[in-house]
Amino acid sequence: MLRSCATHLRTLRSGSVEVWRSFSSEKVTHKDHAVPNPSWSKDLRILFDQFMKKCEDGSWKRLSSYRIIPPEHLKDFQTQFIDPSYSKEEYILKGQLFTRSFEDGMGFEYVVFCNDVEKKVVCLFQGGPFLQGVPGFLHGGATASIIDVALGKCAARAGGIVMTANLNINYKRPIPLCSVSVINSQIDKIEGRKLFLSCNFQSSDEKILYADATGLFIKLDPKKRLT
Amino acid sequence: MLRSCATHLRTLRSGSVEVWRSFSSEKVTHKDHAVPNPSWSKDLRILFDQFMKKCEDGSWKRLSSYRIIPPEHLKDFQTQFIDPSYSKEEYILKGQLFTRSFEDGMGFEYVVFCNDVEKKVVCLFQGGPFLQGVPGFLHGGATASIIDVALGKCAARAGGIVMTANLNINYKRPIPLCSVSVINSQIDKIEGRKLFLSCNFQSSDEKILYADATGLFIKLDPKKRLT
Repeated sequence: MLRSCATHLRTLRSGSVEVWRSFSSEKVTHKDHAVPNPSWSKDLRILFDQFMKKCEDGSWKRLSSYRIIPPEHLKDFQTQFIDPSYSKEEYILKGQLFTRSFEDGMGFEYVVFCNDVEKKVVCLFQGGPFLQGVPGFLHGGATASIIDVALGKCAARAGGIVMTANLNINYKRPIPLCSVSVINSQIDKIEGRKLFLSCNFQSSDEKILYADATGLFIKLDPKKRLT
Repeated sequence: MLRSCATHLRTLRSGSVEVWRSFSSEKVTHKDHAVPNPSWSKDLRILFDQFMKKCEDGSWKRLSSYRIIPPEHLKDFQTQFIDPSYSKEEYILKGQLFTRSFEDGMGFEYVVFCNDVEKKVVCLFQGGPFLQGVPGFLHGGATASIIDVALGKCAARAGGIVMTANLNINYKRPIPLCSVSVINSQIDKIEGRKLFLSCNFQSSDEKILYADATGLFIKLDPKKRLT
């Protein structure tokens, strides 16, 4: 299964040169995407500036976010969790982080801030026009995706490399495309390698609760290979 | 909130001409994406051919799938669910269906088949390299997204235009990037406008259960506006 993926990626390279080129050039830059770009609305910029101010005394931190995994992170992951026979496979090197794989402004625009003492994580989010479900509103899968990111980042602060084991999402109100929202996440309980979390997903003025969710994340066991 | 979205889209158009061009040309074609393309692996093609054979006696149907909402569907939706004062806003016309908004092979490749008598829906899926989470594996949000599609298509067969109200997903095993999997969905119960569904998410050889999920979908009420 995994070997056929490398073959598939080679096919993509020869069949879709333009896509592949942007893909390769991006690999080199390792640009941090969790900063404002021209697609960010005024609402998102205001919220970003507010949280950057909270970072000044060190209580909050902005988390960097990359489209391509930086080589040092990848190496650690490969050493611990991937069978060495797969370590040179293209499928790992050519993948892009799902929620960062869109052109600026078209998909998931977001930045995550964390407060490790309070065990809280805040995700500021603007969902672009390529995330549409019912016309004019965010797709349920896009909502689930950014919730997975918000909860996952929160779990990772306590657990290192984690994987989602359960997501339970209640969709309360449709989320307008391109609007700005805030996801507040927290760790409710830790039992061994299991981290139990919850979040709420609100409009930027906190007047509309779009969704709430719980998540169970598992800290990966360095003694067990994923492949 | 909704009006600022149209402004945002105009900004994108002037600031990101290339993206906008491909965006606009796609709008005109209304191509059905639920058919094989060069990125499809052999495994996905074999499964597709098997289901196309099942369609020959009319018991199963392949469902078309568009990146841009065809105008006739959009008109019906606008008439029923969107406040007329918003009906000409760009945000609806320029949006793309989230799970179809990637280049061929890079994101969600899938086709959905349904059997209306048995109330079953099968989604054949291949997740491309832009859907990566933990290196080499599908992002939890991408898994949730294709589950939302599979369950949503199943709900829509019985309920028309539906929205997700709850998704509860158990992630059992990591899903290798670019592998082929099958999601079997069914309606378990209907109570008024509520549709209760469940699904399992398996490898193409049915040997690995990657995930299972339940979903609650609500049939939209034509008497109520979303905006």
